[in-house]
Amino acid sequence: MAEIYRLNKIKSVIKKINTVDIIEKGFIYYSQGKVVVPPVGEMIFDDPPGDVHIKYGYIRGDDYYVVKIASGFYENKKLGIPSSNGLMLIFNQKTGQLVAILLDEGYLTDVRTGAAGAVVAKHLAPKNVERIGIFGAGVQGRMQLMHLKSVIGCRDVVVWGIDRDELERYKDDMKKEGFSIETTLNGEDVTSTCNLIVTATPSRKPLIYAHQIKRGTHITAVGADTPEKNELDPEILKKADIVVADSITQCIARGEIHQAVKAGTIEKEKIFELGRIIIDERLGRSSEDQITVADLTGVAVQDIQISKAVVEKLVSSK
Amino acid sequence: MAEIYRLNKIKSVIKKINTVDIIEKGFIYYSQGKVVVPPVGEMIFDDPPGDVHIKYGYIRGDDYYVVKIASGFYENKKLGIPSSNGLMLIFNQKTGQLVAILLDEGYLTDVRTGAAGAVVAKHLAPKNVERIGIFGAGVQGRMQLMHLKSVIGCRDVVVWGIDRDELERYKDDMKKEGFSIETTLNGEDVTSTCNLIVTATPSRKPLIYAHQIKRGTHITAVGADTPEKNELDPEILKKADIVVADSITQCIARGEIHQAVKAGTIEKEKIFELGRIIIDERLGRSSEDQITVADLTGVAVQDIQISKAVVEKLVSSK
Repeated sequence: MAEIYRLNKIKSVIKKINTVDIIEKGFIYYSQGKVVVPPVGEMIFDDPPGDVHIKYGYIRGDDYYVVKIASGFYENKKLGIPSSNGLMLIFNQKTGQLVAILLDEGYLTDVRTGAAGAVVAKHLAPKNVERIGIFGAGVQGRMQLMHLKSVIGCRDVVVWGIDRDELERYKDDMKKEGFSIETTLNGEDVTSTCNLIVTATPSRKPLIYAHQIKRGTHITAVGADTPEKNELDPEILKKADIVVADSITQCIARGEIHQAVKAGTIEKEKIFELGRIIIDERLGRSSEDQITVADLTGVAVQDIQISKAVVEKLVSSK
Repeated sequence: MAEIYRLNKIKSVIKKINTVDIIEKGFIYYSQGKVVVPPVGEMIFDDPPGDVHIKYGYIRGDDYYVVKIASGFYENKKLGIPSSNGLMLIFNQKTGQLVAILLDEGYLTDVRTGAAGAVVAKHLAPKNVERIGIFGAGVQGRMQLMHLKSVIGCRDVVVWGIDRDELERYKDDMKKEGFSIETTLNGEDVTSTCNLIVTATPSRKPLIYAHQIKRGTHITAVGADTPEKNELDPEILKKADIVVADSITQCIARGEIHQAVKAGTIEKEKIFELGRIIIDERLGRSSEDQITVADLTGVAVQDIQISKAVVEKLVSSK
């Protein structure tokens, strides 16, 4: 009989999972063509405005298939309830039986996105990270930094935001995690001192420009997941020695690479897929001087991998 | 906090719901263009063979949207577990919040299909039903007959099947429901004595032919839900005075009407949608002499209506 797990229970086991490792494996499966991801289902509501996305797929020959249902209803704030919501359903790939329902309220999407940032840093960040720069003091700004702990030694951080109170809360929270945090409203404070930068905002115009980026910097952009959103000046992708996409097809349709292709600052042939970089280290950073950029738009294999890991841990810890 | 309901609980409230009434309303909404049903999501597995379908949609301005995930893994029988499986998720259309999960194991799909048969009989069966004929002694053969109880007075039934043991079990079960049941392996026994016939089999070739159908007969075909399945000789639709589809677009793509269009025995203009017949009685049967045929392929609004009714009853009976 299928079990239903709520957020508290899910959070309690996620600590025991090497999320970076399982998401890394997911990107390998994806780039090896082992992942089947049909088109996303969508419902758009007008009054009040809301959108629902149904993502589903599986790894060939795996034990499970996964269906994720996520929604955003932005007027929920007026009602004092979260605007984003989500759950994942895990089924047995051999029988169709429901294995578990994870009522994660979108938490696992946050975690798998944070873990993907760490996978990228593991393979593309310079060996000597002087300082970490985070754009965005929200949930994903926290997730990115916390996941970097396991792959990057540096604990010196500057965080950029647009709201002083939010920045102070970020500082308090991340200090508890062992980081030394400086806050700023000026992006230049990040680009001039950091050689590992993560952008995690819902911005629709560039936060940083090509002339600001120091040699040797790695940038991971995780905020843009629609064709409209944009965090990096398209010239940055032209200046970069290596540009990496979590999914090439998806990043051409949305995200930073989409913006750069549209602006004519990058050719599709210059883009490598993250799974290929993981498989073949030679495709990754080859000197401390290179500028590297990774565009993460979110791939269903991440949902498959994280939900599998959570379910297996929940079942084994019963 | 969303509640999860399992099959026993769902079965206990379904008895208290006027399923025929709520499914009838659903067909009206559908034919009025009030129902939004995006394309069905699909995953097909090879080893072992299995298929998963994700159906979802909503009635404009309603309280909920519904996602149904159903699967068929036909080698499950070897493992002693059901080949079909399913669940429905009901969300708040104004906030995206999960309202309830119905782990109905496909039961509600059986019920809403049975109820649709009764809706059709209510509007198209002759006033004086002499005898009811059922093709198929499985779950849906039972569902169809039980739902006819509330709309048809006749309790005299002949059931056709291919397995004597299955027919005997059907007879025993339906006698308990107040029917007088005769069983047969010969379809002619049905067509020669019945003027209300329901076909509920997975057949891929016609079970009955045009020359067998008496004047004044109504036939509801519910078995064919793929382009390959076929229970009625396409000439029957030519002979019929009125042909009704639950969804015209869907019945042209699959089901009996699909077969007849392919065989050239019916023009699309001759087909009426069930919701329109319900709204305007003048489009339905106008004499006891007419032959009428209804093709039911299953529409998502039925899932929406049945799951809403179940959830509302579950919540109010807490």
